[in-house]
Amino acid sequence: MRIVIDCFGGDLPPSEIVPFAFRAAEDEQVDIILVGDETVLKATIEEQKLASNRVSIVHAPNVITNDDDPATAVRHDPEASMSVALRLVKSGEGDAVISAGSTGALITGATLILRRMKGIRRAALAPVIPSSKGPYMLIDSGANAECAPEFLPQFAVMGSIYMKEMFGIERPRVGLINVGAEEKKGTEFLRTSHQLLKETDGINFIGNIEGRDAPLGAVDVAVCDGLVGNVLLKSMEGTMALVLGELKKAFKTNIISLIGAAITNPYLKKMKKTFDYKEYGGALFLGINGLVIKVHGSSNGKPFYAAVRQAKRFMESGINQKISTELEKTSKKVLEL
Amino acid sequence: MRIVIDCFGGDLPPSEIVPFAFRAAEDEQVDIILVGDETVLKATIEEQKLASNRVSIVHAPNVITNDDDPATAVRHDPEASMSVALRLVKSGEGDAVISAGSTGALITGATLILRRMKGIRRAALAPVIPSSKGPYMLIDSGANAECAPEFLPQFAVMGSIYMKEMFGIERPRVGLINVGAEEKKGTEFLRTSHQLLKETDGINFIGNIEGRDAPLGAVDVAVCDGLVGNVLLKSMEGTMALVLGELKKAFKTNIISLIGAAITNPYLKKMKKTFDYKEYGGALFLGINGLVIKVHGSSNGKPFYAAVRQAKRFMESGINQKISTELEKTSKKVLEL
Repeated sequence: MRIVIDCFGGDLPPSEIVPFAFRAAEDEQVDIILVGDETVLKATIEEQKLASNRVSIVHAPNVITNDDDPATAVRHDPEASMSVALRLVKSGEGDAVISAGSTGALITGATLILRRMKGIRRAALAPVIPSSKGPYMLIDSGANAECAPEFLPQFAVMGSIYMKEMFGIERPRVGLINVGAEEKKGTEFLRTSHQLLKETDGINFIGNIEGRDAPLGAVDVAVCDGLVGNVLLKSMEGTMALVLGELKKAFKTNIISLIGAAITNPYLKKMKKTFDYKEYGGALFLGINGLVIKVHGSSNGKPFYAAVRQAKRFMESGINQKISTELEKTSKKVLEL
Repeated sequence: MRIVIDCFGGDLPPSEIVPFAFRAAEDEQVDIILVGDETVLKATIEEQKLASNRVSIVHAPNVITNDDDPATAVRHDPEASMSVALRLVKSGEGDAVISAGSTGALITGATLILRRMKGIRRAALAPVIPSSKGPYMLIDSGANAECAPEFLPQFAVMGSIYMKEMFGIERPRVGLINVGAEEKKGTEFLRTSHQLLKETDGINFIGNIEGRDAPLGAVDVAVCDGLVGNVLLKSMEGTMALVLGELKKAFKTNIISLIGAAITNPYLKKMKKTFDYKEYGGALFLGINGLVIKVHGSSNGKPFYAAVRQAKRFMESGINQKISTELEKTSKKVLEL
C-alpha cells in the first residue's frame, strides 16, 4: 500500500508535515511518497534526522495555492505538487492522496485525473464529525453546491458503507437535512430527494432531520447538497469557537472564576480538540477511483498521521469495491423497473 | 399601543405566560390583550392575584397545535387563539401579535390575514442572534425554504433598517451566506443574489460570508434563503447544546474538576442563556402589515416580556414605515431604468 502525501499548498510548512509522515509509515507499515520541492523535502529530512526505508520523494517544483482558480488549477499546472500527487494514483504508483491544499482545486483535480467511479453521478466531500453520541458522516459538505435529487441516494449509499466498514455500525441511520421532520417539508429538491431516499435499497433511511439533530447524534450519515452541508459544518465550527472563546473570557472576570479557569482551561482545550473534526484525519472525497483525503493541518501535521491510518483502513476494508457492488445492484434494479 | 398575546399553542401553559404579560404591561406602559380560553385565563389571573387596567381578555375557545397542518390551520380554525389574535391586528384593535404557537401556522396565518406590505415579495422570519461581537439578524431563517434571488435584496433592506433602528448600528454590514467569499462561488441562485445585493441602494453589502463567519460577528445582517437560514440557526443551537453538555460531563469526572464544576456551572448556565437567542424576545416576521413576533417560551414566560418591549420599540421606531419608504425608492429606481 502506497500513500501519496502532497506536502505543499496548505497552511503548514513541509517541516511540520514530514515528521508525521515518517512516523505514520513506520507505525502503520505503509509506504509513503512525499511530493513537492525535492530540495526542501530533503533538507527537512536531514535537519530532523528522519529515516525510514518506507518513505520516498517525488519531485514537483510548483505549488497550487488558495489564490489559484480551483476550477483550472490542476489542469493549468501539471507540475504542481497536487497535480503530481494525483497522477501518481492515476498511474497506479500510489493508492491514495492526502493533501492540505485548496479544497476546490483538489476536488476538481481528482475528478479530472482520477475520474468518478463507474455509475457515480457526483463525487462528494465527506468529513466524519463528532456528535454527542459518536461520529457521523456529513455528505456532501461542499463539493457540489448545486445537486440534483438523484445524487443524494448515492451519497447515502457511500456514507453508509463507509460508516459500517470504518466504525462497525451495522445499519447506519441515514437522515436528510431539512427544515422539519415531515415528509413534505422543504423545497421541491428536498421533497424529491426524500422520496428517492425512501426507495433506495440497502440503506437505513430514517427520514428528515433538522440542523440541530446532527450535532446531537440523531444519525450516522447526514445527507444534503453541498451548500447546506457547508453551511452546517462551518456554522458548527464558528459556534464552537464562539462558545469556547466566551467561556474563556468569562472565567477571567474575577478571582473565583480565575481558579475555575485554572481548573477548566485544560477541559476547554480538550473539548476544542474532541470536537475539532480536523484532528481526526481528514474529509474524504468519496466516489472517485482511488482515494483522496483533504486534511486541515492546523497547529501541526498530526492530522496527516491520522489521515494515513484512515487511508490504510479505507483500502483494507475495500470500501470502493463495496460501493461499486452496491451501486451496480441499485442500477440493475432501476433497469428492471 | 396595544399588543396582542396569543396565550395558547406553545409549550408553556398560560399560567407561565400571563404573569409576564401583566408585568410587561405595567413596566412598558402598553395595553395588552390576552387571547385564549377565557375561563383558563381568568382563573390564572385570580390564582396569581394579578391586576392591571392595561390588560384585557379576548376569548378564543380553540388552539392550533404543532400537529395541525401549518398551511391551513388558521383558515380552518377561525376560533383558534392564534387566528383571533391575528384578526385583532387586522381590524386595528391591536398593533402586534406575540405567539409561541406553531411557526408555520403563524407565518401562513399572518400572510393570509395581515397580508404582505405593498411591494414586499416575501415576508421573512428574522431572529436576532448573539455573536461574539454583538447581535446580528438572520433573515430569512425559515419562512421561505425556496427563494427567488429577487427576495434577498428586500430581506437585506428590512434587516438593515431593523438593526439600525433597534441597535443603533449606523450602516449595518450585510453579508450573503455562501460556501466561500469569492463573488462567483455557490449556486446560480447565490450568484444572481450576490449581483442583486451589490446593486441594491441603501444597504452596506460586504459580500459573501461563510457559515462560520456569522457566529463570529462578521456581519449585522446575514441574508439567505429560508433553508440555509434554518440549517444555520439550528446547527448553532445543536452545537451549543453539544459543547455545553459535554463540558458539564467533563467537569464531573474527578475531584478537581468537581471543584471546577462548582465554580464553572453558573458560567455554563449564563453562557447558555447569553447565547440562547430565544431569551431575547422572539423572531420577527418582517414584511407584513403590522408585526408578528414568534417566541419560544422555554422554561418560563420571560421571552414574552422581552417580546413586548421589542414590539413597543419596533412600533415607536416606525420600522414598517421606513421599510415602505426605502422599498418605494428601490422600485422607483427600477422603473427609471
